[in-house]
Amino acid sequence: MNWPMHGANPQYLYERASIEMPENALDFSANINPLGPPPILLDKWEELFQTVHLYPDPFASRLKEKISELHGVHPKQLLIGNGAAEIISLLGRILAGKKVLLLQPAFSEYEEVCRINACAISHHYLAAENDWELSPSVLKKEISKMDAVFLCNPNNPTGTFYPKQIIEEMLVICEQNNCYLILDEAFYDFVQDYEDMVPLLKQYSKLIILRSLTKMYSIPGIRLGYVFASKQVIEQLQHFQSQWSINGIALQVGELLIDQEEFQQKTQIFVQIEKKKLYNFFIKEQFMHSESAANYYLLRDPLFIDQKELLTFLLNNGIIARHTYNYPSLEGKWLRFAVKSKEENQQLQGVLTKWRQVHPSSL
Amino acid sequence: MNWPMHGANPQYLYERASIEMPENALDFSANINPLGPPPILLDKWEELFQTVHLYPDPFASRLKEKISELHGVHPKQLLIGNGAAEIISLLGRILAGKKVLLLQPAFSEYEEVCRINACAISHHYLAAENDWELSPSVLKKEISKMDAVFLCNPNNPTGTFYPKQIIEEMLVICEQNNCYLILDEAFYDFVQDYEDMVPLLKQYSKLIILRSLTKMYSIPGIRLGYVFASKQVIEQLQHFQSQWSINGIALQVGELLIDQEEFQQKTQIFVQIEKKKLYNFFIKEQFMHSESAANYYLLRDPLFIDQKELLTFLLNNGIIARHTYNYPSLEGKWLRFAVKSKEENQQLQGVLTKWRQVHPSSL
Repeated sequence: MNWPMHGANPQYLYERASIEMPENALDFSANINPLGPPPILLDKWEELFQTVHLYPDPFASRLKEKISELHGVHPKQLLIGNGAAEIISLLGRILAGKKVLLLQPAFSEYEEVCRINACAISHHYLAAENDWELSPSVLKKEISKMDAVFLCNPNNPTGTFYPKQIIEEMLVICEQNNCYLILDEAFYDFVQDYEDMVPLLKQYSKLIILRSLTKMYSIPGIRLGYVFASKQVIEQLQHFQSQWSINGIALQVGELLIDQEEFQQKTQIFVQIEKKKLYNFFIKEQFMHSESAANYYLLRDPLFIDQKELLTFLLNNGIIARHTYNYPSLEGKWLRFAVKSKEENQQLQGVLTKWRQVHPSSL
Repeated sequence: MNWPMHGANPQYLYERASIEMPENALDFSANINPLGPPPILLDKWEELFQTVHLYPDPFASRLKEKISELHGVHPKQLLIGNGAAEIISLLGRILAGKKVLLLQPAFSEYEEVCRINACAISHHYLAAENDWELSPSVLKKEISKMDAVFLCNPNNPTGTFYPKQIIEEMLVICEQNNCYLILDEAFYDFVQDYEDMVPLLKQYSKLIILRSLTKMYSIPGIRLGYVFASKQVIEQLQHFQSQWSINGIALQVGELLIDQEEFQQKTQIFVQIEKKKLYNFFIKEQFMHSESAANYYLLRDPLFIDQKELLTFLLNNGIIARHTYNYPSLEGKWLRFAVKSKEENQQLQGVLTKWRQVHPSSL
């Protein structure tokens, strides 16, 4: 049995590790807003039942209008998806057989979808030693041979955020080389002082921006994402999308949540405070962590190369981390954790302290 | 502007017809159970909120187990889909570039998906004059050249049901010619005295059975369908399915509803009684109708070839029928109606009576 492809659904991780799952296990492997869904969702939940017996609008007209107004993008430059995962899958179809560059470590679905669509995949490895720094000029030659580059920002799983200037440098190179830049912004709304990349669509026709409502609004069970791109690209994606792909609940929920700006800010502040406390603890207890702009981070105990022993210890103590065996260049040398509630983050610290007692650091 | 591809979402039909949509318009264009969702769904709706913040199980293990137990099929011969529409879309991928036969009139998604995947499409036209009778022996030569045949049973839009014997004759021919028979049973659970086709999977490796929970359980907003086939076919379909494609609410709802046998029987009886009353009315008022085993039927006024005038009259009177312009061989000569509640069916009869007063039949 392989390690599970993704976080969440921890029953499969326990199964793989041959450990019985404790009843109150805490799942740090899913990068979901620790504040849960915005309260308005529970308030309106009963009303949403009325959408169950209706076919969803296959054009998602109302939600599309809302999003395009909010971001100042023409509705024809926008497609709603059954989660960002569906959009990645649709992108795979328009990239079928083409040359695609992945900046590793990266969200594993890019590679999966490229393989399914027989793309020629190249990898460029960002180095942990340099905090996964991205230097566009270094990529120039490689990009000149490519049809598309996937870039996750902030990156998943590291949390590294590449500022607008870097993205623009990438775009200039991509544009010169007729290469798509697929900018996955699934976690952009967790970034404090985020500079909007959407206006770049006007200048750069090869830019594709992917978004998800799943993470910020804590609705992964609902499935909702969207993509901005040129009208031509949107048309191609739409062509491959299956009928009524986005369920009616998701469309309604999207309309309710899309402009919850206050909730976003509250979340950003909360996550920032919790990360600070966690980082202080990690430094004190001699764990290494990634500098993350998002609601998750990488962690490792420098006493070990492979972190399997720590992963197992955590699982036995009811703490579910995300393994990194299927992230090229990480390959088990790190674990990924979501920033969760204050109490849950404390529980994690408690278990890590216990680990440190058994494995004292001599650093 | 084209006629809408599908029923439901009547705002687009009104837009196409340049008629303002009356406030209390009744939608007969979506083939949904007139009894609405089973009461257990409303009872449990509040609890379902708990699935919103969790990633759906990408393997749908629990629902899969339930369905495979219920139907006596190995879980590896089963895939759950984001509505049957997604499964049709996935079937398109494994049929890409292949030769596909469509028995017309048929659900328009088959052709749509075949076109997207560059299939070579052939049509065989079933004749209205023969009640859309299907004679497998006539198709023998045609099937010998094919890789797959789509067959909807009961057929959509006619409602014609082909008994097990006909399906077996088709299967024998398909099996001899290494051709898939894709049996779309989206409405099988409305058929009284339905003979189960699922056991045929054991004998015929080329059989693919498609099911939907949308229609019987009145949950098109939720999206849920499934497919039975050989392990090899299921593996191929799964390979193309995007990650977390079936939302968490749908998985839970599926588990709640899959074995509501009493609700099914109640529905069948209700639909049967309503259809009988409607058919009597149609005969009396000299309308022609299809003999339907499902919860919808075709209707035409024999005074006209194209039924656009009737469609428009109905729209003006708040009755939304499904046009048939995109059904090859029907092409506007019929209208399709769902069987709705007693009161709604009476309202339809009222408007049709009004129409007959303006257009008296001399037959």
